[in-house]
Amino acid sequence: MSSSAVILFAHGAREPEWAQPFESIRDRLRAVAMPIELAFLEFMPPSLDEAAARLAGKGIETVVIVPLFLAQGAHLKRELPAMVEKIRKRHAKTEFRVTPALGESPEIVAAITEWVLRAAR
Amino acid sequence: MSSSAVILFAHGAREPEWAQPFESIRDRLRAVAMPIELAFLEFMPPSLDEAAARLAGKGIETVVIVPLFLAQGAHLKRELPAMVEKIRKRHAKTEFRVTPALGESPEIVAAITEWVLRAAR
Repeated sequence: MSSSAVILFAHGAREPEWAQPFESIRDRLRAVAMPIELAFLEFMPPSLDEAAARLAGKGIETVVIVPLFLAQGAHLKRELPAMVEKIRKRHAKTEFRVTPALGESPEIVAAITEWVLRAAR
Repeated sequence: MSSSAVILFAHGAREPEWAQPFESIRDRLRAVAMPIELAFLEFMPPSLDEAAARLAGKGIETVVIVPLFLAQGAHLKRELPAMVEKIRKRHAKTEFRVTPALGESPEIVAAITEWVLRAAR
């Protein structure tokens, strides 16, 4: 039994293939042997609630929720904190932590800048 | 007068600060001396139409549209191609090219994986 895990939290879309990059990130991280779940805001299962319940049910002590969103809009500023508050009340023995959006990371901004430079050639 | 330029095409949101990571990417690329515009699907100006018209009006020969979306949903699969088709008809002297979504790039997937690993520590 592991004491920490990650939930990758993505937007979701109607097209199943939309999830592919996120599944690819999850699979890479799973290969590093970290308990990891992918969860979606809408359109696709599982929900953040379901993923949190699954990990809390396994007795995980700390769950880090990593929003796979480029920037912080209403989804991350209002909806996610409200969802996490309810999850914390429901699973009081598990600590839930939320990281910033991808675009807050200088490394991600640098990687995207490089990608644009290559793509624009 | 330059013969090629880039439009960074992002989703947009109601919160002005949402645009910050995208403005940061645009500013870094501007520093590399490439004519570059940021355009949004909704909520924020300018639209893709407006950005395309501005660059075509300057006599730019090739415009590369880089969607700053993590994955390909309806926005990139249906809405963007329809918008680009109209833009091509309106500005026949300029070539418009569209790159894949960020999540199609192995380097971006790797950078996000690294970010999750650091964030989850």
